[in-house]
Amino acid sequence: MSARPQFDRLRVVLVNTRNPLNIGAAARAMSNFGFLHLRVVNPYELAFREARSAVGASPVLVSAQEFKTVAEAVADCTLVVGTTAASRRELQHPVRRLEQGAPVIRKRLASSRVALLFGSEKRGLSNEDLSHCHWLLRIPTREEHRSMNLGQAVAVCLYELSRDPQAAPHSEKPIAVTASDLERLTSLLLDALHASGYLKPRSAAPTEEKIRRLVRRLHLSAADAELCLGMLRQILWKLRSGPGSY
Amino acid sequence: MSARPQFDRLRVVLVNTRNPLNIGAAARAMSNFGFLHLRVVNPYELAFREARSAVGASPVLVSAQEFKTVAEAVADCTLVVGTTAASRRELQHPVRRLEQGAPVIRKRLASSRVALLFGSEKRGLSNEDLSHCHWLLRIPTREEHRSMNLGQAVAVCLYELSRDPQAAPHSEKPIAVTASDLERLTSLLLDALHASGYLKPRSAAPTEEKIRRLVRRLHLSAADAELCLGMLRQILWKLRSGPGSY
Repeated sequence: MSARPQFDRLRVVLVNTRNPLNIGAAARAMSNFGFLHLRVVNPYELAFREARSAVGASPVLVSAQEFKTVAEAVADCTLVVGTTAASRRELQHPVRRLEQGAPVIRKRLASSRVALLFGSEKRGLSNEDLSHCHWLLRIPTREEHRSMNLGQAVAVCLYELSRDPQAAPHSEKPIAVTASDLERLTSLLLDALHASGYLKPRSAAPTEEKIRRLVRRLHLSAADAELCLGMLRQILWKLRSGPGSY
Repeated sequence: MSARPQFDRLRVVLVNTRNPLNIGAAARAMSNFGFLHLRVVNPYELAFREARSAVGASPVLVSAQEFKTVAEAVADCTLVVGTTAASRRELQHPVRRLEQGAPVIRKRLASSRVALLFGSEKRGLSNEDLSHCHWLLRIPTREEHRSMNLGQAVAVCLYELSRDPQAAPHSEKPIAVTASDLERLTSLLLDALHASGYLKPRSAAPTEEKIRRLVRRLHLSAADAELCLGMLRQILWKLRSGPGSY
């Protein structure tokens, strides 16, 4: 099951891929990010069969569709986007950086199918392949080292398509400590500081407030507070019972 | 050379990596995105030597530093972030989704070194490794298939760190057509429409304006306009010279 229904409208199209490891890596990234429809155009047959029959081959790979031409592979899509490392060929097509192209693709996926094309490891997409594209997508790599590994390029594109800057910022943070536990901790710490002679009875009040604020700034989780409480209890017991006790 | 000076402050740390292909893939993604400082902790020696001596091994790999422990590998960093596929272990650490964690890392990189840790292919980072981390980063993969390939995970994290939503949206678009070329094109098209009888001398003015607006809406590049001009010239010549000419 895809993460979101519109993801079901994307077709990842691998054109002339040669290395079975790369086909497998592309399928794995697709499965990771919830885009489950893979199409392969004219793959090196042996490589494709190898990848498909690999132990633990993902359902994405097993259900991949095979086509003879790019035209057939993109026929049912209303938007066809090619990926490219920037080069002279791009001048014949509009090129969007991945950050800018992804929102356009997402918008189209809300209502119809989009094909995202990746070329062969050695040569990328040919001019004939590119002529089927409405525009091109470029991952913003360094000028000194533009060309990405195919599996990594697929992963980065699908991550960008699925990224969600609105996601809850700390949805998985640990359970927060309650105010009462924090106060228990503060109180134990103050007892220990008094017992140790760090706090003098006379000047205690302002210093106590300082300590109280410090404990709040620690942003302890419930579990960590529990841990601290245990340590402080032990320290306090030792402080009170004197060096001879054990 | 890194794309941006603050990228020089990131240390990508691979802990207990086993597969030389994965070390090579990580180094390639680092080079793609301009993060050039790789550290490896306790790598499977043979794998590391293989990856390093591979034909065309990237400068990133050749200059990688080797450490015996995580503690040594992160000693000079002020922020240590572990990567993880969500699991029970995460409950012991705050976890940020990549989209939310990346800005925090970028901010720190402006002034000091940050270590980004990736665990072994089979087990990820151990609890001992994680205990060196300030917090954890999670790539938002599907619950049904959380665990990513190591090289792909490195690529996605570094892409997110280097992505730039402010980048000019069409910095690489083709050269735009000049107004004078557009008017030449409009004029030729009108001539052809007149010659073909589509436009009648009497009702021409409003229709001509409609055609002029249409031509502007096409957003032609200079090269495409040139192409259209050539086609129209030929069509117009044929229209004027009559069916018998060739």
